[in-house]
This record gives sequence, structure tokens and C-alpha cells, in this order.
Amino acid sequence: MRRILVIHGPNLNRLGARDPAIYGTLTLQDIQERLAEKAQELGVELLFFQSNSEGAIIDFLQEHAPHAQGIVINPGALTHYGLSLRDALADTRLPIVEVHLSNIHAREEWRSKSVIAPLAVGQICGLGWRGYLYALDFLAVHIREEEV
Amino acid sequence: MRRILVIHGPNLNRLGARDPAIYGTLTLQDIQERLAEKAQELGVELLFFQSNSEGAIIDFLQEHAPHAQGIVINPGALTHYGLSLRDALADTRLPIVEVHLSNIHAREEWRSKSVIAPLAVGQICGLGWRGYLYALDFLAVHIREEEV
Amino acid sequence: MRRILVIHGPNLNRLGARDPAIYGTLTLQDIQERLAEKAQELGVELLFFQSNSEGAIIDFLQEHAPHAQGIVINPGALTHYGLSLRDALADTRLPIVEVHLSNIHAREEWRSKSVIAPLAVGQICGLGWRGYLYALDFLAVHIREEEV
Amino acid sequence: MRRILVIHGPNLNRLGARDPAIYGTLTLQDIQERLAEKAQELGVELLFFQSNSEGAIIDFLQEHAPHAQGIVINPGALTHYGLSLRDALADTRLPIVEVHLSNIHAREEWRSKSVIAPLAVGQICGLGWRGYLYALDFLAVHIREEEV
Amino acid sequence: MRRILVIHGPNLNRLGARDPAIYGTLTLQDIQERLAEKAQELGVELLFFQSNSEGAIIDFLQEHAPHAQGIVINPGALTHYGLSLRDALADTRLPIVEVHLSNIHAREEWRSKSVIAPLAVGQICGLGWRGYLYALDFLAVHIREEEV
Amino acid sequence: MRRILVIHGPNLNRLGARDPAIYGTLTLQDIQERLAEKAQELGVELLFFQSNSEGAIIDFLQEHAPHAQGIVINPGALTHYGLSLRDALADTRLPIVEVHLSNIHAREEWRSKSVIAPLAVGQICGLGWRGYLYALDFLAVHIREEEV
Amino acid sequence: MRRILVIHGPNLNRLGARDPAIYGTLTLQDIQERLAEKAQELGVELLFFQSNSEGAIIDFLQEHAPHAQGIVINPGALTHYGLSLRDALADTRLPIVEVHLSNIHAREEWRSKSVIAPLAVGQICGLGWRGYLYALDFLAVHIREEEV
Amino acid sequence: MRRILVIHGPNLNRLGARDPAIYGTLTLQDIQERLAEKAQELGVELLFFQSNSEGAIIDFLQEHAPHAQGIVINPGALTHYGLSLRDALADTRLPIVEVHLSNIHAREEWRSKSVIAPLAVGQICGLGWRGYLYALDFLAVHIREEEV
Amino acid sequence: MRRILVIHGPNLNRLGARDPAIYGTLTLQDIQERLAEKAQELGVELLFFQSNSEGAIIDFLQEHAPHAQGIVINPGALTHYGLSLRDALADTRLPIVEVHLSNIHAREEWRSKSVIAPLAVGQICGLGWRGYLYALDFLAVHIREEEV
Amino acid sequence: MRRILVIHGPNLNRLGARDPAIYGTLTLQDIQERLAEKAQELGVELLFFQSNSEGAIIDFLQEHAPHAQGIVINPGALTHYGLSLRDALADTRLPIVEVHLSNIHAREEWRSKSVIAPLAVGQICGLGWRGYLYALDFLAVHIREEEV
Amino acid sequence: MRRILVIHGPNLNRLGARDPAIYGTLTLQDIQERLAEKAQELGVELLFFQSNSEGAIIDFLQEHAPHAQGIVINPGALTHYGLSLRDALADTRLPIVEVHLSNIHAREEWRSKSVIAPLAVGQICGLGWRGYLYALDFLAVHIREEEV
Amino acid sequence: MRRILVIHGPNLNRLGARDPAIYGTLTLQDIQERLAEKAQELGVELLFFQSNSEGAIIDFLQEHAPHAQGIVINPGALTHYGLSLRDALADTRLPIVEVHLSNIHAREEWRSKSVIAPLAVGQICGLGWRGYLYALDFLAVHIREEEV
Repeated sequence: MRRILVIHGPNLNRLGARDPAIYGTLTLQDIQERLAEKAQELGVELLFFQSNSEGAIIDFLQEHAPHAQGIVINPGALTHYGLSLRDALADTRLPIVEVHLSNIHAREEWRSKSVIAPLAVGQICGLGWRGYLYALDFLAVHIREEEV
Repeated sequence: MRRILVIHGPNLNRLGARDPAIYGTLTLQDIQERLAEKAQELGVELLFFQSNSEGAIIDFLQEHAPHAQGIVINPGALTHYGLSLRDALADTRLPIVEVHLSNIHAREEWRSKSVIAPLAVGQICGLGWRGYLYALDFLAVHIREEEV
Repeated sequence: MRRILVIHGPNLNRLGARDPAIYGTLTLQDIQERLAEKAQELGVELLFFQSNSEGAIIDFLQEHAPHAQGIVINPGALTHYGLSLRDALADTRLPIVEVHLSNIHAREEWRSKSVIAPLAVGQICGLGWRGYLYALDFLAVHIREEEV
Repeated sequence: MRRILVIHGPNLNRLGARDPAIYGTLTLQDIQERLAEKAQELGVELLFFQSNSEGAIIDFLQEHAPHAQGIVINPGALTHYGLSLRDALADTRLPIVEVHLSNIHAREEWRSKSVIAPLAVGQICGLGWRGYLYALDFLAVHIREEEV
Repeated sequence: MRRILVIHGPNLNRLGARDPAIYGTLTLQDIQERLAEKAQELGVELLFFQSNSEGAIIDFLQEHAPHAQGIVINPGALTHYGLSLRDALADTRLPIVEVHLSNIHAREEWRSKSVIAPLAVGQICGLGWRGYLYALDFLAVHIREEEV
Repeated sequence: MRRILVIHGPNLNRLGARDPAIYGTLTLQDIQERLAEKAQELGVELLFFQSNSEGAIIDFLQEHAPHAQGIVINPGALTHYGLSLRDALADTRLPIVEVHLSNIHAREEWRSKSVIAPLAVGQICGLGWRGYLYALDFLAVHIREEEV
Repeated sequence: MRRILVIHGPNLNRLGARDPAIYGTLTLQDIQERLAEKAQELGVELLFFQSNSEGAIIDFLQEHAPHAQGIVINPGALTHYGLSLRDALADTRLPIVEVHLSNIHAREEWRSKSVIAPLAVGQICGLGWRGYLYALDFLAVHIREEEV
Repeated sequence: MRRILVIHGPNLNRLGARDPAIYGTLTLQDIQERLAEKAQELGVELLFFQSNSEGAIIDFLQEHAPHAQGIVINPGALTHYGLSLRDALADTRLPIVEVHLSNIHAREEWRSKSVIAPLAVGQICGLGWRGYLYALDFLAVHIREEEV
Repeated sequence: MRRILVIHGPNLNRLGARDPAIYGTLTLQDIQERLAEKAQELGVELLFFQSNSEGAIIDFLQEHAPHAQGIVINPGALTHYGLSLRDALADTRLPIVEVHLSNIHAREEWRSKSVIAPLAVGQICGLGWRGYLYALDFLAVHIREEEV
Repeated sequence: MRRILVIHGPNLNRLGARDPAIYGTLTLQDIQERLAEKAQELGVELLFFQSNSEGAIIDFLQEHAPHAQGIVINPGALTHYGLSLRDALADTRLPIVEVHLSNIHAREEWRSKSVIAPLAVGQICGLGWRGYLYALDFLAVHIREEEV
Repeated sequence: MRRILVIHGPNLNRLGARDPAIYGTLTLQDIQERLAEKAQELGVELLFFQSNSEGAIIDFLQEHAPHAQGIVINPGALTHYGLSLRDALADTRLPIVEVHLSNIHAREEWRSKSVIAPLAVGQICGLGWRGYLYALDFLAVHIREEEV
Repeated sequence: MRRILVIHGPNLNRLGARDPAIYGTLTLQDIQERLAEKAQELGVELLFFQSNSEGAIIDFLQEHAPHAQGIVINPGALTHYGLSLRDALADTRLPIVEVHLSNIHAREEWRSKSVIAPLAVGQICGLGWRGYLYALDFLAVHIREEEV
């Protein structure tokens, strides 16, 4: 069974409590449940991880990427400066979809620049928790197509 | 019944023929058929438009936006300099999802800057024709939620 | 009788309906009527044109500028990138007054830069529809003075 | 009776003598006479002030703005760096129209940037001494409308 | 017989009348006649097109490029911002020579930047109408060599 | 009793040993003692934390900010790039005073830019360990005033 | 007895009346009284000066700095462009603390740049009128320490 | 007899006392005596002026330039931002030599940019008080040559 | 008989051997032979020069430009920084055509900037060795026309 | 015996597996063995450390630098933004040699900028694992020389 | 036997005499002797060249590179602007190691930018004359490996 | 007897012939004669050198600077990019006065930047050939003063 890593960067464990006007009212737990449901539908296995530390996310990637086929990642603010994370993601050679709950292109100037995006297959932003579902849906198909 | 405008900017009528490695092998016709199918499922009506001329797209928006509830737009290269289109989109006051077939953040520097994105609810890029389906799916829900 | 071209760029046909807090409540029709009245007072003839397409405005200029003595233009968002329009205006060799309903220097950074202004005799912005009247008044005198 | 401050920045006392090709042949005295005439027509009172010193203009503003309803200002070269003047103008909370005799957008690059403009209702430039008349005319109406 | 598209952007229909010190005294008609003569010599067929509208030029390219072997284009001011035209040209996959009548590197700073040039085989500027002849001559040979 | 978090970023555990000409001769322990004394005077409780890891500071903030009323933070070099820390601080919605021992505006160019400062109530720099005392003093009053 | 100059730049005589949401409700007179009280406690003498004119502040500095041991200065908007003031301050060779009532790092971009700060011992901003007290407190100690 | 204005900007009245390693040990009085001597030799009359206020220097220029044939000016820090002074100098239409005691191109980056220099005949910097003598010598000859 | 200087900058003596994919397979000798042939046709005399040293090219220009009527130059990499060469070319006051074998606008960013181009009548790039022939052809006509 | 710290930043534990075309085929283990051998030759002791977390590297430095005489460091992507690491390295006051396996000046623009390099004695890049040996060799000599 | 070119740019003939604090006390002659010794050990032949003229270095490269297998080069200040040298080095297609005696990343900003580095296999800086030995050692191995 | 080197960069051998409106009508020979005369008066010996090649000027400096006490240099266009010349001048450790015939701050933007000026004692520009005399006069005194 194909496995997809679902990674959340710094502060995303605060979802639901964190500025709901921007980030929505669902908790990370809520979102992961919906993703799990969707994954079952799609016949893929998910491995969740959240950390406030760039180093810990890289450790996670190094351990689990070799046994996975795709990555959904919301890097939080690491999006804008996490070059070590970037190198770790590049090293996985897996298809990556970058997700942001809010529209990073409609906030502070510096939020619109992602150092991760050039490595990703694509980016979804501003569609709230549904963005994760679309990313998952896409990856499930994409992985299958690549295997052919 | 809710109506969503699906707008394609310059050169997108060439899909299928245009650099398939970047833009995929489906024609615009193919994509629109899949969107129509999806729309039926979602219970929304779609109005398609493609033009190579910024002025014509603005004309279309001025005529049809007052009778629509949302917009899915792939502005093509107007993404990067179409400020008149931007003003026209802002004037509609409708929820907009910006879609790009390719990952604009992984190509030439200038392609990563969108003058449209700050007006949009969100942006999807790099997920090929499926990006349109996700945008449609999101808008259908979003419109319903806003109405409540 | 001296003839003055009064040209409105993209989206200005939406005046009245378009964000009234910024652009005022008068329609383009209303403004043109007031201009026509003023023109009669000043003894000049007006030729109005609005288009959402840069190309169409250039076509209009090429056809009518040879038979006119001055230009009042609100280029809309073409102000900021319409270099073809700029060349067309330069080619007329007529005195031009650039008008903006809103104060373009008090909005987004990019709106304060006009590629048209270096060709104009002057610029009026932020004075609403009255800006057009002042522009017309000025041009009527200016043309007369130049002829002496 | 409503009172409008008419303020001229550094070097504008030299009008008439100063480079007439750019600034025209009328002296400051001439312009003020025409403004006084116009003011009488409009039923507003004018208070004139010119100084070569930013500090003196701020002193004047602090003393007289509390008893005035609007400001017409040509800040001269302070336009480009007079941030103290800017703060003083902001502090008045009065409607301001910025006037320049020449077209500041058609000269040296640095002249096109105004630190005052973002505070103003609007800006008129390049229309010579008539620009002052239009500014006055506009303010007289604007003040009346705001009071309603 | 090999066919070459000869495309002129905005305002180039005004050649002869337009600032002759910069653009020369020949009309577009004159230039096209000389090109036609030269084409006959070279044994290639020419298809001429001029428009003031970016969209119309793209329409033309989409229709005619599939039946042509090369493109000579003077994009006028679209040179500097016509990214949609750029994408349309790239989509043709034909050899392109960009021509400018004046030396765009010796005028305003912004004129020296071409968004089209990176797609072209080469660029000729400042050689007046003869630049078109050289471009044509080059393309005729280049096409023949590529076919070998 | 009101609680204030006192947070020290990377390398500040080295105070006293670290370049005394810039950072002074007091150890972090010394400073914390003086702060504790002052806190007693002011009737507020302090919670100290130092870490060399951005992630650990965010973890600390997420755990303790919900039970605190204010934050004194010297982010060390995270000041200049710690955007994840910034988001975590913003998420606390507490009043923050940013403190730097040295004058960050009088050293390398990059040190004068703080990504944290826009979120803070204020910033104190260059006043050595006394800066912490002033920050504490201010916050104690500020919290009391906000509660009224 | 040690003497400290307390200098206020342009528009600070308007405190209390000037935008209270940003600058607080105390007048300059109020702040100076609190400073005088504090000075008595600290055993230092204060000399107050406010002017809207950069030249007048430099005159004051040249006259009084030779008889003083420290400077507390809020340069108002001169902070951002008053290079002559900067040179005058440097010339005093006295320890300087720069104070701003509001957090200059959380307002317009240009307000976060101080041409004075590189000369100062330190900067306090955003702590309202208390910032002056802290600056005074610090300087009183700092002067004593330097003398040893 | 020809008259030359010798103008010193802010802080130059402090010469001799001000950082002698950079500005030398002569007082302004000393320099002016040497200039007066030299002027006698050259048969020109000098008019000296120093002020810390840009406005006062402009006032002086407006009064005395009409009766002078040349200007030697050391604008102090106004060199870098005194655009009003610049306009006043331009308005005199006299030949100007800009003098700096220190080498402004070997200090802070911002000191190497002069807004005055583009108006001057030439600039001398780094040659200490002798720079004034050379400027005077040059102007005396230059004025004579221009008169021929 | 009219004489045209044909100058090749650094590394162009390596043509044929140097990266043929970019610079073609003809040697400099080959190109010069074709130019000589063409020159005979056109009735002009050519003087060839190649050097790897900017100084030597300037020496050549100073010696031979006074006896020539035009210049064809491929400055090699001096194109981008050879300001001394630029001054030497300007000093000749001859019509210049700048030629590049490759399309300098389609390579590294820094190659698209020419410090020579603003002095030239025109520029040809990307047309390989034929670019020289066109330049020669143009100059021969241009010189004749200028003489009339 | 002299001790040298050999530190590897994020992702370097993946050597051998990570993109071998760029980083070579040796594992970190392999490199460390060769370094250990070399150290024995040189009579120095090595202490190895690798972490994906900036904070952990700083912790290591604070603990071990006081007992070491030099540092060889490959900071991985922290090279470009790890300002906290920079401060920690500066705090050690030890001679540092920065090593990169690949040539960071020949990859993405941002990789050529090192925030660490200004603190280092020197930098070696592009020489693969041998770069470490050279760094070690240099440091062993350098430490001995400094001690004299 | 393999031959390696060892090239020194402008001013490096002054080593030993030139600022020894930065460049060390060994003369170029001394360094070359140590290199010759090392070369003998490694079984490679060296060809030394130094010139103050970019053109002469290019001449040398064109003559000798065809008979060499690698290049060690310290381009001196040509490092920062010698684009002709860059093209000549690229043309050799040999492996290049760039050496700098001082740490160019710890001096003036402009010294940290090398136009040569993107062509080199690697760069060594700040390790004094030993940098040359390491470069030589590396190249000797590298050449052997490439041949396999 | 003290010796001063008088060095002229590229194209200055063309003085008199070269654009006299900018550079004057005297030849280099004329200027050198006047300098020789002046030198005799001042009791210093002059050594003249002009070259169009940066390398040759560096050779000259290396040979003659050890036997000289000062340098007057007009680097021509090398002023703006001659970093090798800069290093050679720095290496002389002699006092340098940089001279330009024209006012480099009143021409193209790039001419106002000198890479030499930060090394010089001072700079004179725009005073024509007299600038050399002033430079010489200054150096003669300066050398004497330094020796005391």
C-alpha cells in the first residue's frame, strides 16, 4: 500500500485556537481525521507529523521518506526561510504538494515567497483545510500515474 | 442555480498542442468536459470563456459576473501584468480561485509573481487539469457556506 | 471648432457601480454629461471613447487624434503598464492631461507609477469627477494659448 | 466663513524670476491675487504663507490649521523629503490638495516621488498657476460636502 | 514553398508619419514592398500582419504559425511587457528574429529590456527598415539549414 | 498574580563569557536575579526560559503563554530570521517587549532589521541588562492599564 | 551637578492633541514634569528643548552640549532624514539615548530606519512617555559609570 | 568688482573643535581669513555665510546671488538630502564649486552621494581648507573666462 | 575609398575552436574572408583587428579611426564592462554597429547588458557570422547616406 | 593534544545516498574515517558532530569549543540563514574553516552567500570530501603557528 | 606527464611586499618553489604565469591550455570584473581551482563576488599560500580520476 | 627631491581632440607643460605616464611608486571598474589625489561612482586642466607636512 507523509510545520498544532479568521476553526486533529477518511477512500496510508522544530522535521523526513511515495507539507513559516528543510525535501526525490491554509499571496509581502515551492509538484493556498484533501487526492493519482 | 464563470486567458485554447511536458496532453475541450461533469455532480452551472485578449475577458466579466456567484480563472501570462484584468476581477466582488496548470513557482522568476492572487480566495498551481476540478469543488462549497 | 478627445480606459464604464467609496457614485454617462455642458461653455467639441482593450484605444487615437487639438485621458490600470498606449499618445503630439478619480499616490505602491505621465502636460488625481472638468478647462485655455 | 490655508514651500517666492520655461512667468503675488479673486467668488477666506524653512511652515500649520477647514499646498522640494512637514500636515486632519506648477512626473526621477501625496485628497501637477485655482475650487466644494 | 510570418506590433502602422527622426520616413507599406521583393529573390512566401492589439496578434500566430517556418517580428512596445505574446511565440516553436527600427538600447532604460528576445534566435535593432531585410535573409537561410 | 514570560534566544546563556565589550559582564543568572528582585517589587511573577533552538522556544510559548499576561523577549539572532518564532509570538496575543543588550542599529546592517518588532509593543536596545528591567517595569504597568 | 539635554523634534509640541491612539494623551508639558521629578530623584539637571526646525535644534546642541553630560532625544520625523542633526549629535561626543513614543518598527516601512540610531548608545520605542523616564534613568547611571 | 558667495552649511561653524582628525584644526574664522587674503590677490570680493538651517541659506542665496558672479559652497550634510537648497542653487544660474573638507567618497556610503553636485561646475573633496582656496582660484578665472 | 574598421574583442580569435554550439564552426579567418568578399562588392575597404587586450583595441582605434568612416565591432565580453573601450569608441564619432554571434539576450543575465550599445547606431545578435555581413552592408549604405 | 571540532549541518548525515552527482558517493562515516586517519598523522584529536537542528549544533559548540583549538564546519543550508549558529561560532573565538562539498558559487544564486564565511579564516568549496582533509591540514598548522 | 597551469593575476607579483597582514610574507617566488616541490611529489609538471594585464593572461591561456590538463588560478582583482578572462577560462574546458590568499568573503562586499567561480570546480580562500598546495593536490587527483 | 607620479588613464592621450565641450581644448602635452612649470615652482619632480591599458599602468606603478612620494591620477574610465588598478594604488601606500577634467557627478549615473576614490586623499572634478595644478599643489604641501 502506498504511503504518504503529511507534515505540518511550526505553530500548526495550534490550529483551531490560532487566529480563526485566518486559519479556520478546525483543529489539526479534526483535519487529520478528515484526511484519514479520505485516505481510506483512496487506498493510501498516511503518516502524520507536526513539529515546531525544523531539525525534527528533517529527522522525520530522513527516517520515513525512504518508505513513502509522496509528501503533503504545510511548512508554516519555514516556507519562507527553511533552506535546510528544502534540502531535506529535495533529498527525498518524492512528489511533494505544498499546502497553506491561508492565501499567502494576499498577506505580508514576505509570505508570498516560498523556498519550498520550486521543489514541489504544486502548491495550494487559501482553500483552508480542504486544500489538504485536494493535495492528497492529487498525490494518490499522481503516484499511480508515475508508476505506470 | 448557482453559476460559476470558468475563464481561460491567452494561449490556453492551445492546450494539448502546447508544450505537453509542461501543460499536459488534455485539450481545453477535454478539461471543460470534465468540469461540466463535475459541475453537474455539484449542482452548479458553468459558463466557459477563453480569449487571447485582456479587453475581451474584461468585457466578458462585466457582462456575466453580475449573474454569477464565483470565478475560476487561469489568467495565463496576464497573471503577471494584467492589472486591468485585476481591477475587473476586484470589481466583481465574487470569490475567485486562481488556477495554473504548471507550478509557476518553479519556472522563470517572473512567473512566480501574480498580480491577481492578492484578490483571490486562493491559488492552485502545478496540479494540471485536476487543479480546475479542485477549484470548482472548493467554490461550490464556499459559495454555499457564504450564503448561510 | 477645437476638438478634445476624452478617453477612458478599462473598467471605467463601470463607474457608479464600481467601488463607490473609491470612485464615487456618478456613472460614466453622468460625468460625460457634465463634461459636455462644460465644453459648450468653453466652446470646444468633445469626442468620448471608452474601451477595456488597449488595442481599441490605440485604434481610436490613430483615427481621431489627427483631427483633435487635445486629449483628456484616464487610462485606468493601463496607466501602470500600457506602454503601447504610451507610444500611441506620444505619436499624437497633442497636449494631454491625465486624470484619475482616486488619489493613485495613496493606494498600492504600484498605482503611484504612471508610464503615461511623462508624456502629459500634467496630471490630476484624487479630485473625483471634477478632475475631468479641471482638465478640460485647462486644455481649452492651453490650446488657445499655444495657437497664439 | 470657511478658511483655507494656501502654503508655498521653499523657492516659490521666486516665481516669475525662477526658470520661466518650467515655472511660468507669473509671480507668487500674481497668483495670490487670482486666488483671492476666486476665493471671493467661492465665499471662502484664504490665508497665504510662504517660507524657505520647513520648520517655519510647520509652525504656521500648528498655529493656523486649528482655525481652518482645508489646505492647498505646493511644498516645493520638501515634497520629496519633508517628512516633518508630512507629520505636521497629517496632524491637521484637514483635507489637503497638493499642487505643483510643473509636471513632477516628467522631470528627474526623484521629483516624481511625493512623501506628502499619500496624505492628500489629491494632487494636481503640470497645470501651472491654474492648478492652484482648481485646487481651491475643489476644496471649497469638498469642505461643503463633508459638512453635510 | 517556405512561408515566413512578418508581424508588426502596436503603432507600427503609423510608420512614416510617426516621429521620423527615430523611425524613418518609409511607411509600413513601403517596407512591406521591399520585403516582398526580397522574398521573391529568396524564394520564400511572406504573410504580413499588423495590429495594435496583443490579443489579435496572438490569434494570428495561433492560426498561421502551424503553416509557417519562421517569424520576423517587431513587437513595438509589447517588447517590454507582452508576456502573453511571448508565450504565444514560444508555443510556435519556430525560429524568430526580433527587429526594432530604432536602437532600443540607446533610448529610455525600460526600452532596452525585451521579454521576447530570450525566445528569439537573434535580435536586430537600430538599422531602420533594412533590419527587416537582414532578418528575412537570415531566416531564409536558417530554415534551409535546419531542414538539412 | 500576573505572570510574565522572560525569554532568551540562542547564545544568551553565554552572557558574561560572550564578548563582554558588546554584551556586558553580567551572566544570564545575574540578570535573572535582578529581574526577580524587580518583579517582587512590582508584584508580578516571572517565568524564565532560554534555548538555542527556535523550536524549543515555540514549544515553551505554546505551553506557557496561555497562563501569562506579558512577554519580555531577547530573541538573539532569531530576531532577524525567526519567522516561526514570530508566528508563535503573534499567536499568544500578549503584549511583548523586545530587548537587545547591544544597539542592534549600530552594528552590521542586517542586525538592524527585526522580524519580531512589528508584533511588539516596543523595543529597547543598547541599554545592556537594564533594558530588561525597563521592559519588565513597563509591562507590569501596561498589563494593569489594559485590564482596566 | 550633571546636566542632561532633553530634546524634542518637530511636531512633538503637539503631544496630547496629536493622534492620541499613536502618541498618547499626555502633553509635552506633562511629560517634562514627570521627567523633572525623576531627575530630582536621580540628582541630575535637565535642559528641555523643542523645535520644529532642524537648524534650531543644531543651534541648541552647539550651545548647550559643551556643558552637558548626556542627551535624551526624540527627533520626530528628523529621525529618518536629519543628517545635519546627526552630524551635530556626533559632534557632541555625548552619550545619547533615542526615544520614540510609538513603535517605529510597526508602522510605515520608512519609519523603521533611523539615521540617528547608529550614533546612540541605545534606542527605546513604543513605550510611550515612560520611554523618556527609562532613557533618563539609564543615562544618569551610564554617565556615573563612564566617569569612574 | 566681481563678488563670490562663500557658503557653509550646518555644523561647519564648529570647525577646529569638530573631530579634527577628519575636519582639520583650523576654525572657520581661520579659513575665512585665508580666503579673504586670496580674494584680495585675485581681485574678487567675498561674502561669507554660515547657517545650521537650510531655510536660512536659501534666504541668503535669494538675497545675494543676484549681485554675485559665483558660489563656493560646502553644504555640510545638506549635501545628501537638501533638495530645497539644490533648487535655490539652480535658480541662481551662477557657476558653483562644491567643497568638502573630508573625502566624502571614503566614508559612509550615503556620504558619497551629493544632490548638489549635478548642478555644480565641479567638486573638490578631501583637500581640507585648501580645497576652498582652489575653488576660489578656479571661480575667479572661470568667471573672467565666461565674461569674454 | 571608404574604410570600415572590423574589430574583434577578447577570445574571438578562438572562433571555430570555441564552443561551436554557441559560436558556430567558422574560424575568424573564414569570417574575415567572407567579409572581404562582401566589402569588394560594396566598394569599401576593410581593416581587421583582434586583440585580447582592451588597451590594444583602444590603441588601434586611436590610430585608425581618424582614417575610417565606420566601425563594425564585436567587443566580446568587453561588451559588459569595457568602459574605456566605450569612451574610445565615442571619441571616434563614427557610426558603429555592434555584432554578437550568439543571442546575448538569451544567456546569462549579465550578458544582456551592453555598455557599448548606447553609442552604436544599432546592434545585431544571434545571427552568427552573417551578422557581420549585415552590419557591413548596413554601414556601407549608411555612410553613403550620411555624406549626402 | 590539540582538539579540532568537525561539525556537519543538516542533511549531511545523508551523504552517499544524497544526490551523488553533487555530493559524491562517500558516506559521512567514510569521510570521518579518512579524517581520523589524517588527524592521527597530524597529531590532533577530532570530535565529530552532525545534527539537523541548528539549536543542537549551538549546544554542542557551547559545550565543546572551550576545550578545542579549531573548528572545521560544513553548515549545510544553515550557511545561508543560520545567524544564531553564526553568533555561536563567533563566540568561540576559535579559528574556523568552512567546507562545502559542492561549489556553492556555481549553483543557485542564494547558495553563494554565506553568513558564516565572514567569521572564518577561510572557505573551501567544490573539492568534495578532500576539502575536509585540506581544512584539517591547514588548521593543524595554523593552530601551531598561532601558539608560537 | 600531466601539466597544470598556475596563473597569478594583477599585483600578485608584489607578494611579500604587499600588505603582509593580509597576503602573508612569502614572495611569489617562494610560493612557486613550494609548488614546484609539491608537483614533483605528485608527478605533475607546472607552468607558471603572472601578469598585470587581463589580455596577457588570456593570450597565455590560449597558447598553453591546449597542452595542459588543469588550471590553478588566483585572478587577483580580475576575480570581480574580468569577464573576458572568464570566457577564456571557459573556453579551455579544463578543470579549474580558484585560489585566494585572503578570505574574500570577509573583506569589502564587492570582493566576495567572483565572476570566475561559477566555472571552477572549486574555490579555496583565506588559507594563504597553502591554498595553492591544496589546489594542486586536488587537481592532480582529479585529473587522474577524470581520465579513468 | 620629492617625486610625484602623474598618471593618465585610457583615452586621455586624446585630450584636445576629444570632445572639447567636455574635456577642454588643451592637449595632454599642454597640460603636462603647465604641470612641469608648476612643479618647478614647488620644488618637486614629476614623472608622467599615460596608457590605454590597465595592466601597463599597474606595471608603471609597481616600478616607480617605490621611488615616489605622491600620485596624481586621472584614471579615465578605469575609475569605474579598474579594481586591479585600485589594488595597485593601495599597494603603493602613497597619498593619491584623483582628478577628473569633467564633473563626473553631472553625467551618466555610472560615472559618479569611483572605485579609486576610497583610497585617495581627495578628489577634484570638473575644474578642467586646473584640477591637475591644484592636485599637484596640494600634494606638494601634503607630502612636506606628512614628513614632519
